[in-house]
Amino acid sequence: MYSIKELQRIISDEIQNEAINIYKTEPVNLYQPISYTLNMGGKRLRPVMVLLAYNMFKEDIKKAFPVALAIEIFHNFTLLHDDIMDNADIRRGHDSVHKRFNENAAILSGDAMSILAYQYLLKAESKNIQAISQLFSQTAIEVCEGQQYDMDFEDRMDVTIDEYLTMISLKTAVLIACSLKAGALLAAADEKTAEQIYDFGINLGLAFQLQDDLLDVYANEDKFGKKIGGDIVSNKKTFLLLKTLELAKGETKQQLEAWISKTEFDPAEKIKEVRGIYNLLGVRSIAENKVDKFYQKAMQVLEEIELPNEKKSELTGLAKLIMQRDH
Amino acid sequence: MYSIKELQRIISDEIQNEAINIYKTEPVNLYQPISYTLNMGGKRLRPVMVLLAYNMFKEDIKKAFPVALAIEIFHNFTLLHDDIMDNADIRRGHDSVHKRFNENAAILSGDAMSILAYQYLLKAESKNIQAISQLFSQTAIEVCEGQQYDMDFEDRMDVTIDEYLTMISLKTAVLIACSLKAGALLAAADEKTAEQIYDFGINLGLAFQLQDDLLDVYANEDKFGKKIGGDIVSNKKTFLLLKTLELAKGETKQQLEAWISKTEFDPAEKIKEVRGIYNLLGVRSIAENKVDKFYQKAMQVLEEIELPNEKKSELTGLAKLIMQRDH
Repeated sequence: MYSIKELQRIISDEIQNEAINIYKTEPVNLYQPISYTLNMGGKRLRPVMVLLAYNMFKEDIKKAFPVALAIEIFHNFTLLHDDIMDNADIRRGHDSVHKRFNENAAILSGDAMSILAYQYLLKAESKNIQAISQLFSQTAIEVCEGQQYDMDFEDRMDVTIDEYLTMISLKTAVLIACSLKAGALLAAADEKTAEQIYDFGINLGLAFQLQDDLLDVYANEDKFGKKIGGDIVSNKKTFLLLKTLELAKGETKQQLEAWISKTEFDPAEKIKEVRGIYNLLGVRSIAENKVDKFYQKAMQVLEEIELPNEKKSELTGLAKLIMQRDH
Repeated sequence: MYSIKELQRIISDEIQNEAINIYKTEPVNLYQPISYTLNMGGKRLRPVMVLLAYNMFKEDIKKAFPVALAIEIFHNFTLLHDDIMDNADIRRGHDSVHKRFNENAAILSGDAMSILAYQYLLKAESKNIQAISQLFSQTAIEVCEGQQYDMDFEDRMDVTIDEYLTMISLKTAVLIACSLKAGALLAAADEKTAEQIYDFGINLGLAFQLQDDLLDVYANEDKFGKKIGGDIVSNKKTFLLLKTLELAKGETKQQLEAWISKTEFDPAEKIKEVRGIYNLLGVRSIAENKVDKFYQKAMQVLEEIELPNEKKSELTGLAKLIMQRDH
């Protein structure tokens, strides 16, 4: 089996090569923003997951490249359109596409990426291709639903923890689970094992996103690589905020609500004060316990998969890599 | 075989039923704009083409519903996103989606429609499903390319007739051709016949779009159902304008260029004057000849298809219906 590091290098090279081909395709105003997006980098976690799951069953990982590329292109498409909707001008340290080019370019190039993802997917040779395409479509529509719930939550103060978990499951976890299951299906894994791998992915994805909520507030800024506190400044309905809204009473609740409704404030002060409320109510450890619960659930599911341990060890490694990313 | 009218009624009912189901799906802010779009109506030409081509080979047209719906949903998705990019507030007499809802809703609902199209497509049961999905993906990406060329042309004064024909082929003709070929492939038509049907569709699509250019300038406004002259007012690079730019010399050319560069003018006057220049140079009949050339080519391709005439007669009927739409 390949190591995660090897897979990361292999698929990064492959994506870069594709980005070069795409750059040269006409009309350039359509394809250059796509190439630009794919060249922005990132850890390529999802395509690595496709290859890794495939590699648990088969050695010829090249056969999984089309599906790995499809999922990375789809993921980047969602980021591209999310950035328009969220008015986000920076992505991975670069200008986002609508800022670098223009909004129409961002809309149309995103549309093309979503279709390109299917084009790559349909290049895969597998008796399971229809099942893989259906899984991918179901996942893609769920990611849209997750983004919609996320936007809906901005205007609501009564979002429950359960609703939040549903949202992050749709927006983040299903694509991680899909990447793993698609790799397994492509390698002709049996349906039961593929479904267990999916379940592992869902739990890992939930742990991953909750960890992300925590990092935004508690990460070491130098290691994290981006400014912390962004979620607090924008009143983003994260697990931490929702749990705090649920637990806060009396004066503490009033303080929190005052910070949420303020339109003019010093960001650093707001971050410090809201984090103070989080600490007072112990939501950090509640969130950490929740992360741990999902992580342990993922490990338990992995345990139950009837495959030799050496086949599963790279998935354990992947889970560890994902969860130790405060750098 | 079913008549075109019957197919139109059958698929319109089917689309309306789907729109009702979609309306009830959560999150409503994602699905209601989709339902709204599908309910706007239209002639449902593309899904009718899927059914009609299928029906040339097989009777159980229900089996072609998923593909017919997929193509109608995809087509409506492109209109939805085009309306954002073109800043068009009206579509088929209704507020366009970004106007009725908001721009983020229009972006995300469009994204979801593009994926929904694949979901419907992948429901189809056929040994040709991968070929049909590949055809659809190739077509979809070409439609994006066509839209990009169309936008690029806005900023260029040196667009050639050949470039224009490539653009309308991508933006309009390939989806018509794809609708017909997908229906044929689904009915397990042989590859040669399916390709001939595609070729018929391309020529018909080109005739259709050039006719549309003509109608914008020369239609009877009452029968046409929308204001004429919009292309002239907005300097749209249609066949008529490009041919006129090619033919005009001296004072006539100066007059035309003056109208193109004017930012303040009486629309009715501009329409009358530019149409006068078109008439002077005889571009109306040049365009009509071009329409006729593509139409006759379509008929010739149809003639060559080795199927009994009664199987092909509905395609002739379809071609006539499409071309006699100045009402």
